Amino acid sequence: MPSYRLCELAQRFELELHGAADTLITGVCTLQPGQPGCLAFLSNPKLRGQLQDSAAAAVIVSSRDAPNLPGPGLVAGDPYLAFARIAGLFDPGRMFAPGIHPSAVIDAAAGLGRGVHVGPNAVIEAGAQIGDDSFIGPGCVIGRDARLGACCRLVAQVHIGARSQIGDRCQFQPGAVIGSRGFGNARGPEGWVEVPQLGRVIIGDDVEIGAGTCVDRGALEDTVIERGVRLDNLIMVAHNCHIGEHTAIAACTGVAGSTRIGARCMIAGAVGIGGHLEIGDDVVILGMAMVTKSLPGKGVYGSGVPIAEARQWRKQVARYRRLEGTEQRLQQIEQRLGMTPPAGRQGDEKGDEQGS
Amino acid sequence: MPSYRLCELAQRFELELHGAADTLITGVCTLQPGQPGCLAFLSNPKLRGQLQDSAAAAVIVSSRDAPNLPGPGLVAGDPYLAFARIAGLFDPGRMFAPGIHPSAVIDAAAGLGRGVHVGPNAVIEAGAQIGDDSFIGPGCVIGRDARLGACCRLVAQVHIGARSQIGDRCQFQPGAVIGSRGFGNARGPEGWVEVPQLGRVIIGDDVEIGAGTCVDRGALEDTVIERGVRLDNLIMVAHNCHIGEHTAIAACTGVAGSTRIGARCMIAGAVGIGGHLEIGDDVVILGMAMVTKSLPGKGVYGSGVPIAEARQWRKQVARYRRLEGTEQRLQQIEQRLGMTPPAGRQGDEKGDEQGS
Amino acid sequence: MPSYRLCELAQRFELELHGAADTLITGVCTLQPGQPGCLAFLSNPKLRGQLQDSAAAAVIVSSRDAPNLPGPGLVAGDPYLAFARIAGLFDPGRMFAPGIHPSAVIDAAAGLGRGVHVGPNAVIEAGAQIGDDSFIGPGCVIGRDARLGACCRLVAQVHIGARSQIGDRCQFQPGAVIGSRGFGNARGPEGWVEVPQLGRVIIGDDVEIGAGTCVDRGALEDTVIERGVRLDNLIMVAHNCHIGEHTAIAACTGVAGSTRIGARCMIAGAVGIGGHLEIGDDVVILGMAMVTKSLPGKGVYGSGVPIAEARQWRKQVARYRRLEGTEQRLQQIEQRLGMTPPAGRQGDEKGDEQGS
Repeated sequence: MPSYRLCELAQRFELELHGAADTLITGVCTLQPGQPGCLAFLSNPKLRGQLQDSAAAAVIVSSRDAPNLPGPGLVAGDPYLAFARIAGLFDPGRMFAPGIHPSAVIDAAAGLGRGVHVGPNAVIEAGAQIGDDSFIGPGCVIGRDARLGACCRLVAQVHIGARSQIGDRCQFQPGAVIGSRGFGNARGPEGWVEVPQLGRVIIGDDVEIGAGTCVDRGALEDTVIERGVRLDNLIMVAHNCHIGEHTAIAACTGVAGSTRIGARCMIAGAVGIGGHLEIGDDVVILGMAMVTKSLPGKGVYGSGVPIAEARQWRKQVARYRRLEGTEQRLQQIEQRLGMTPPAGRQGDEKGDEQGS
Repeated sequence: MPSYRLCELAQRFELELHGAADTLITGVCTLQPGQPGCLAFLSNPKLRGQLQDSAAAAVIVSSRDAPNLPGPGLVAGDPYLAFARIAGLFDPGRMFAPGIHPSAVIDAAAGLGRGVHVGPNAVIEAGAQIGDDSFIGPGCVIGRDARLGACCRLVAQVHIGARSQIGDRCQFQPGAVIGSRGFGNARGPEGWVEVPQLGRVIIGDDVEIGAGTCVDRGALEDTVIERGVRLDNLIMVAHNCHIGEHTAIAACTGVAGSTRIGARCMIAGAVGIGGHLEIGDDVVILGMAMVTKSLPGKGVYGSGVPIAEARQWRKQVARYRRLEGTEQRLQQIEQRLGMTPPAGRQGDEKGDEQGS
Repeated sequence: MPSYRLCELAQRFELELHGAADTLITGVCTLQPGQPGCLAFLSNPKLRGQLQDSAAAAVIVSSRDAPNLPGPGLVAGDPYLAFARIAGLFDPGRMFAPGIHPSAVIDAAAGLGRGVHVGPNAVIEAGAQIGDDSFIGPGCVIGRDARLGACCRLVAQVHIGARSQIGDRCQFQPGAVIGSRGFGNARGPEGWVEVPQLGRVIIGDDVEIGAGTCVDRGALEDTVIERGVRLDNLIMVAHNCHIGEHTAIAACTGVAGSTRIGARCMIAGAVGIGGHLEIGDDVVILGMAMVTKSLPGKGVYGSGVPIAEARQWRKQVARYRRLEGTEQRLQQIEQRLGMTPPAGRQGDEKGDEQGS
């Protein structure tokens, strides 16, 4: 593992140095309990009390907390962001030696850039192009005519389907599948007929795709994931979707076909997003929400009824189901009292448009 | 890429030809903007306006739209279905050369039909049988004594577990897992005891299984997926389930153990279906529905409360939770007015049967 | 396949023998229709009627059902548990020959115990340690410095990430991913910055991980799964989670980061559990529940509104959405009648804390 003096880190990441400049940093740690020789950070004001007795060698803090530093430290505008950058120096996963393992199967008609690593039993098919300094881990499969940019990292057992286009500095966790067949089927007299999926998956620079996440290729046009997008594990992105730059989506969320999601959205886990919708820029969707309509504007959205003790839950469901009767009783009382229900609202049993 | 004259396509797919018979078709495209040399289709009446200025060389239309064709075309009873079939001619994914890659590991006691392709680093274990003209992509594993029919396509990194039985013309996307261990565990005095899962997975002809989808093998009997079924990505089918022919299930849906689903059902994405249920034929289930009871008949079903702006959502949840109080207030008013609530409904707080 | 006399099984598993001691058992079967030569079990009292005409050679029953045995049998305190143990004798999946396939790639700096099996095209990286009698199936990847205990079983195509620590007798189904990167990202001025995930995954003894299930490694501390835990397929366990011993989680459930789940919990399928929560011991959570708050105590919890016919569902949603109006009408009536709504409840439109 590498080590750095605190003043080197301050200089390299343009942070203000507090305390002993030659404090040696050999790793990173949590604020509590902290670890000797390691650098921690304080971002959440609620944890301020942990600063005094941390065992960390130094702590990254905001200028507000700098006076409270009990020892060496770095002052940053955004301590968590500074920590993220510095911690990258100590990440063993980012280091690798270029070279091609003899068990890898690379088609003669594939092209590899300089400094590429291809791990054991990886497969690179004809016409595929791998950019400089990319890491193709063990068991990965890069399909025919796929193109990866520079400095990509495919940890292991990743699938990049034929004709996919991947930008620079993208990262793929094990089991990610890019370019699987979109779910296009036409009903024929003797069952489903496969609609060939002739589009591609286009992924911009600096995208991360989590473990087991699947991105289907487009039917005729392409499925597009713009630069800077972060997809967590076990996410489904269906054919022809378009996800705008720097949008982050948490695990187990599914996006049905042809939906467009804007830039800088934050979508929590286990959200279901219907097909052919438009989600605008800067939309925040809370966990397990059921998105059945377009959400054009900036805003925070949620749905679903949170957990309750099971007996209580069953009673709630029963009350919910008899809301029709509850409304009728209300109406009868209003009639009896000669009161008028607000026009055009009550008794109006037309369905909502939330359907499908 | 192949090319066809429009009259050839008309003849081969039994469609009515409009316009220049020798229009050369070298691919397929969307109606808008369309692409020179390519064939598009018009199925949705709302898109009729796109017909006039499409750049497509020809368009497949219904007889109703035939008079509006601005140039060459094909007239079909179901334009989308005709398009699906024709587009298959231009699908590069369907073409492959037979042969066994030297890095593939095929047990001496496995049997391969004629015209089979086995890709790099694929593994075929003892006793497995692969039907004629099947494609086993790179990194696939075919377990002991598994049997695949003819013309199957395992794109890459698919797992077909030991003793699985697969029909003809089945297609498996990357990361699909067939025949994993069912989740059978008995509670013992010192923790869970594994209940061996000795059944198989039986899959009929013309089935498609999506990326990352898992089908567990049966405990004692078999998990059965009948012919023509379409499973999208990241679906879970638990042990002993039975899915009837031509049923289609969209991504992220889970089906718990021993549930039977009928034929020709259409089940949307992220649906949760409980165990030991019976879903009849031709049932349609909308996205994110929570299925806790059997659905014997043909019909359309849904559940869940769609998304709202988060502040509104929180208020809705609060109102939902105080429905008990709302009902009590109603009852007090009725008592005051000497009105009788409908018999046996109100105040009846017994749980529903929606349980578990 | 092996065969056993009924008296051998009685002795070995400490069960009471009924009927012919030398009844030969060559497998296990269901009670109905049963299978000659095979052993079935009766656990559910509702199936008692199936006992008389089962074709099974013998049946495991409780002492209450022993008098009704029509032929040979075994009497057990818990017939299902006894069956689970005996059926293990007939599980072909548990048998393997030690040895290393020539196509496996094992780094010179990896350590393998005695009796280990390494299948075709498996990859074991430098510093990894594999305990005695473990089975590493085809296509598995064991990362750098990972440590597996004795008698583990990795069926095929499993990923064990670098530095993961796995106990004895653990089982991993195909496509399981252990030690993928946690979803840690800091927002920078030019998009997301990766927060290095420097923790590990620590898994205790006797844990089972299902197909496609992903367990992320910790950010700075470790993700911990204690002994005896059972995870079904397609489950997501985010970074820094802690799952207590003997807890079982069904398929498609997701647990967000830093949540602690206690011991012996039973969590059904498709449950969403938020981050930074505390779930106590012996908690039962029903399927598709939305868990947005800590659940300290023993208890059964659920949420969600089960399925309804779609027209009815849409009406329910409309009524739910106009609950605000319903409450207002109620209040107007109460005012008219001079009745006081219960203090501090009604009209109080503050949001709930269920948020996320």
